[in-house]
Amino acid sequence: MAATRKLRMGMVGGGPGAFIGPVHRLAAEMDGKIQVVAGAFSQSAERSRAAGERFGIDPGRAYADYRQMIEEERKRSDGIDFVVITTPNHLHLPIALAALEAGIPVMSDKPATATYEEALALEAAVAKSGLPYGLTHTYAGYAMVRHARAMCSAGRLGKIRKVAVEYFQGWMSKPIEATGHKQAAWRSDPAQNGQGGSIGDIGTHAFHLLEYVSGLHVTSINATLRNVVEGRRLDDDCNAFLRLSNGAAGSLACSQVAAGELNELRLRIYGETGSLEFRQQDPNRLIVKWLDGPEEIHHAAAPYLSADALAVGRTPPGHPEGYLEAFAVLYREFADALVSWQEGDKNPLPPTLPGIEAGVRGMRFIDRVIESNRKEGWVEF
Amino acid sequence: MAATRKLRMGMVGGGPGAFIGPVHRLAAEMDGKIQVVAGAFSQSAERSRAAGERFGIDPGRAYADYRQMIEEERKRSDGIDFVVITTPNHLHLPIALAALEAGIPVMSDKPATATYEEALALEAAVAKSGLPYGLTHTYAGYAMVRHARAMCSAGRLGKIRKVAVEYFQGWMSKPIEATGHKQAAWRSDPAQNGQGGSIGDIGTHAFHLLEYVSGLHVTSINATLRNVVEGRRLDDDCNAFLRLSNGAAGSLACSQVAAGELNELRLRIYGETGSLEFRQQDPNRLIVKWLDGPEEIHHAAAPYLSADALAVGRTPPGHPEGYLEAFAVLYREFADALVSWQEGDKNPLPPTLPGIEAGVRGMRFIDRVIESNRKEGWVEF
Amino acid sequence: MAATRKLRMGMVGGGPGAFIGPVHRLAAEMDGKIQVVAGAFSQSAERSRAAGERFGIDPGRAYADYRQMIEEERKRSDGIDFVVITTPNHLHLPIALAALEAGIPVMSDKPATATYEEALALEAAVAKSGLPYGLTHTYAGYAMVRHARAMCSAGRLGKIRKVAVEYFQGWMSKPIEATGHKQAAWRSDPAQNGQGGSIGDIGTHAFHLLEYVSGLHVTSINATLRNVVEGRRLDDDCNAFLRLSNGAAGSLACSQVAAGELNELRLRIYGETGSLEFRQQDPNRLIVKWLDGPEEIHHAAAPYLSADALAVGRTPPGHPEGYLEAFAVLYREFADALVSWQEGDKNPLPPTLPGIEAGVRGMRFIDRVIESNRKEGWVEF
Amino acid sequence: MAATRKLRMGMVGGGPGAFIGPVHRLAAEMDGKIQVVAGAFSQSAERSRAAGERFGIDPGRAYADYRQMIEEERKRSDGIDFVVITTPNHLHLPIALAALEAGIPVMSDKPATATYEEALALEAAVAKSGLPYGLTHTYAGYAMVRHARAMCSAGRLGKIRKVAVEYFQGWMSKPIEATGHKQAAWRSDPAQNGQGGSIGDIGTHAFHLLEYVSGLHVTSINATLRNVVEGRRLDDDCNAFLRLSNGAAGSLACSQVAAGELNELRLRIYGETGSLEFRQQDPNRLIVKWLDGPEEIHHAAAPYLSADALAVGRTPPGHPEGYLEAFAVLYREFADALVSWQEGDKNPLPPTLPGIEAGVRGMRFIDRVIESNRKEGWVEF
Repeated sequence: MAATRKLRMGMVGGGPGAFIGPVHRLAAEMDGKIQVVAGAFSQSAERSRAAGERFGIDPGRAYADYRQMIEEERKRSDGIDFVVITTPNHLHLPIALAALEAGIPVMSDKPATATYEEALALEAAVAKSGLPYGLTHTYAGYAMVRHARAMCSAGRLGKIRKVAVEYFQGWMSKPIEATGHKQAAWRSDPAQNGQGGSIGDIGTHAFHLLEYVSGLHVTSINATLRNVVEGRRLDDDCNAFLRLSNGAAGSLACSQVAAGELNELRLRIYGETGSLEFRQQDPNRLIVKWLDGPEEIHHAAAPYLSADALAVGRTPPGHPEGYLEAFAVLYREFADALVSWQEGDKNPLPPTLPGIEAGVRGMRFIDRVIESNRKEGWVEF
Repeated sequence: MAATRKLRMGMVGGGPGAFIGPVHRLAAEMDGKIQVVAGAFSQSAERSRAAGERFGIDPGRAYADYRQMIEEERKRSDGIDFVVITTPNHLHLPIALAALEAGIPVMSDKPATATYEEALALEAAVAKSGLPYGLTHTYAGYAMVRHARAMCSAGRLGKIRKVAVEYFQGWMSKPIEATGHKQAAWRSDPAQNGQGGSIGDIGTHAFHLLEYVSGLHVTSINATLRNVVEGRRLDDDCNAFLRLSNGAAGSLACSQVAAGELNELRLRIYGETGSLEFRQQDPNRLIVKWLDGPEEIHHAAAPYLSADALAVGRTPPGHPEGYLEAFAVLYREFADALVSWQEGDKNPLPPTLPGIEAGVRGMRFIDRVIESNRKEGWVEF
Repeated sequence: MAATRKLRMGMVGGGPGAFIGPVHRLAAEMDGKIQVVAGAFSQSAERSRAAGERFGIDPGRAYADYRQMIEEERKRSDGIDFVVITTPNHLHLPIALAALEAGIPVMSDKPATATYEEALALEAAVAKSGLPYGLTHTYAGYAMVRHARAMCSAGRLGKIRKVAVEYFQGWMSKPIEATGHKQAAWRSDPAQNGQGGSIGDIGTHAFHLLEYVSGLHVTSINATLRNVVEGRRLDDDCNAFLRLSNGAAGSLACSQVAAGELNELRLRIYGETGSLEFRQQDPNRLIVKWLDGPEEIHHAAAPYLSADALAVGRTPPGHPEGYLEAFAVLYREFADALVSWQEGDKNPLPPTLPGIEAGVRGMRFIDRVIESNRKEGWVEF
Repeated sequence: MAATRKLRMGMVGGGPGAFIGPVHRLAAEMDGKIQVVAGAFSQSAERSRAAGERFGIDPGRAYADYRQMIEEERKRSDGIDFVVITTPNHLHLPIALAALEAGIPVMSDKPATATYEEALALEAAVAKSGLPYGLTHTYAGYAMVRHARAMCSAGRLGKIRKVAVEYFQGWMSKPIEATGHKQAAWRSDPAQNGQGGSIGDIGTHAFHLLEYVSGLHVTSINATLRNVVEGRRLDDDCNAFLRLSNGAAGSLACSQVAAGELNELRLRIYGETGSLEFRQQDPNRLIVKWLDGPEEIHHAAAPYLSADALAVGRTPPGHPEGYLEAFAVLYREFADALVSWQEGDKNPLPPTLPGIEAGVRGMRFIDRVIESNRKEGWVEF
């Protein structure tokens, strides 16, 4: 009886100064199913080696170019099982294409690509390759998001009538991209980030969460974008109306200039007989309000939760899990799917794991918001 | 030295089954400056007498018609000092006009009238009469609303960039107007209520609170209305984008079909350096979040509050005041203004007390929302 | 058909600078059943007149001595229906005795007297007189306290196993009694206040709330008192263990030197199958946690509440009531009882209104805490 | 340049059905500095192998006996760097002694041993060995606990006057140890658990947190224990008064029969000028209340936090960390200390990491509580 082999991950991006690279490493390895073994962490060989050392990998597997990584790893008997992409957005597509062409599955940070057209190209490539592709819409990994989704799916609220999602941050309230803030700089540069500013960085999360939990699709949108901070090259604030596939309506708001807010992602869903509220900063609780009867607070890991919610937790009730655990849930699902795929399953990805379809819809969202803002009115999705 | 004379109030509306009439009585009398002495509580003489008895007034002063009340009370040496209007909206204008023409000041429930045209007519009548006119936008009476207003006015948040106000209720989630619910019935009937459903009943409160606290004016609006409950004759749900006089933008949402919500009026204002949040259901706290520095919770009656906030409280910190106390603040301010006016002051109304200007803007709001919804796009305010 | 006559109240205490006097006036009059018409507001004739003027009473009925008030009012056909006592504690007994001897019912601020012996004397006098006597343990007037009490009484939590009550304030964190703070000065003076400092002022509230809601009696107590602020003459901090009549156990803590706390009265009751939590600073909600099943929040005025809770509210769900409304509930119950008594009912006081029994138990509590602290161990109650 | 070597961990306990074993694995490996490579997960060889497989270790290093593990691993050039103990309490001492005698550092779950006498023996063994010994008082790893500790240490609250710590759970509200609940069974068995029931399992956490944050020592204690559930062999509920080394006083309460509570560990510390509140179920916030000035909420990872708090976080503000991250902080500190020790540092353990001193004090706490309960009065610590 052999120990379960850990899946081998090769990371692109995540060099010194990166925020999300180390988060991917930690999340990927948390549940003991994945190990980072290679990386093209930076386009500087020296910086890539430094990052690799920090991650504890073999120095020979810290590459300065993702193409080189793919090429070299293919030759190894213990080569990587999949690539994870954690770079700025404009590199998502070429890296993904390179991996897929080499027959290597892909896990990607969001948004899927830099433009909607790129997303369609990627969708085609994924389909053609037949390879697993996952997208880290982190918030989909929270147990209470899974519980909310299960409640909607089971019709617990009656027909959904109204949704409201917002994602407010304040960290870009000043023009920090002009003063050397690396995270702000690439996010404010259309060449690296794509055309969506706040809507690309956080609006896509809000949009995904809404569709993921409600089970509904946005069918049309009326959005207004602003560049609140003078000189900023991309939107930093958005308000949008939504129409949904079942006739419900709603709103989506996001902002990076909501001074004082940290990472306030909040979703509310109103049905005929009750409503749900999830706040990412308080992720171990789901507030459930009934038209008739007391308000309820559902707690993570409690035995009365839906099976989908219980499936993803690691600790007993009252022992809070957080952002990193949510992230790790997606990696765990991806890892399990990858093993199935390696064993021959052609459609191993579970419906709970965001993939290329979510990626395309997210990029379509950005595209439609920009078009609606230009027209100052409704556009079809 | 004589005891301070209480001002004598004559009420129109507030008969058996009314919600808001007894609230006006209680609020008016709370601070010991006003006493209800007369009323045309119902158009049924019998029901008016029954209400009068409940209010403890002289049976001879419970009238079945407001015109009769005005006529009879004018003849008395101890006649009413002012009229308060608590009827359905379509009666607001004729009653106010009758009082003003008789030289009697008016305190009115909101909205000021049933239509924008009526509001302009009322504005002219108030101006012509030179009489005090107050409007009970209750939420303006909360100490923490006063504090928020003072903070904005003092520039504590820097330039305001973004506002978000919402007023969600769930009580009309079912077609209760069709099954004998009196409060729902007149609110759903355009003939009694005017053209605005949720936007007239609660949207005007949200709109007023936003302008009252921020000190800004809405300059254009893009709104979408829905009648979510089948067969309902007026809107029960609204989402609106706003542009404000200083270039800021924002959103306003209201709903009577947000199942599970009770009376969730919530205002957030974002400036360059910080933000405010007020929730009507938690009215003794104001949440203040700074771009740099810890989040703060300001508590009612605490010595660090602004003078305007401290001026209206009655209890020490930690002893919660509520909706009725907020209501009573408006009556207290109106009473003080009335005494000044009786003593010769031509402009006795304090800027903190909503009056005819707020009334006209509120009716304009309803008018503009309906027009924007019709056009499916932006309209000037 | 005549208008309902308001009951006439004569107040002792409440002169200029008083906190609780105006609160009693407001609370007594809130529901339209009582009117203050006379008072011995201060022992200075001038200050009493000034207070009377503020309250809007006939100047001839503002007395400088409570004995004079009682004597004069008895002679009037429209004399007072009852006396309310709002003085420092050492005057509670003589005033109450004077009123009872004159055949006048009494409503008293808490604690009932200055010492346990006095409380026994008062109990005997009340019994002998056959007159209604009420005690304003304000917190018993909250709707959600009534709801909690009804839930315990109905066995909703199973057998009660554990209680925890605490009442934390910070306003006496510095020796403010030495620097002219009137409220602190008399509360720190054993001659005016009696032997209990924090335990008399707020500990008695906590004790009463615990017994009132749980329906249990404290049977023994183990308490430790401290005078945290140097030079303070009475305790300002207390921790106590409790044993209760059904075998349950618990804790009671109070403090006036819990810096940063405002008026943090919080009660938790744990039964076999669930628990309750009430916080006075958030009084329109009751938190109910179940051993099996989601946590619940019960909201004031919601239709699913117990009848006792619904009986005392004035506003619909989501329209917060506060401290003054709770206070007024006790006055309303006292007024209704007084009318019944005037109509011949010998036992008109409802079980929901604290009376002399609660007063005696509260004074016994102070006595037992001091004794336990002296002995450094358990004492029978 | 070589990749940083991960430290090799050998686990005792953590076999199938264990709760805390997998938590240790996850926490130990989270920051990429440690890898589990060996274990004596169960006394059944088969079950130990099954657990080892789940953890992904070499089957040859899954032992059925901790002594065997120690012996075999010592022989290997790639043998374990330290042992972690996750068994029931009665095995803590023998395992720790075996490891220390073999020259292997120890990380242990709490409490340190099963009895106070054992703790003294362990303390002597640790001292004699000169080896690093860490104790996983998990809650000491939260960033906001570190922040609270730093605030106390810096005197931000003035002199500490009062503390209140409580740890309430409800999961043992029924006699589940009698019906096959493994976690409840050994915790209720004095032979496996030691003499402290709730006080050993959770009271020691509360006690440690209090001393850890306040920087004060408990000097005497007055405690009362109960076995609330009939037939239970150990205490399931405790209330205790405390006296602290600077003259402050306080309370400690813990319960496993607080029905409806999940894992409600809450610490409040009151100083002359302000107070702190930490709730484990809301661990990314610290509530700070000032005697003068607004209440504050300090958020994890915010730049205004103390250096100690910022040192332990992994994610930006608004991205919640939880229980597992707190746990991992202790392992990260232990790993760093171990590397220093391997490089020759004789005193590598940082003061922020609980060690044998905390272990001895925790066992002394249990001993003193039991003695105080027996005496029904105060005992010296």
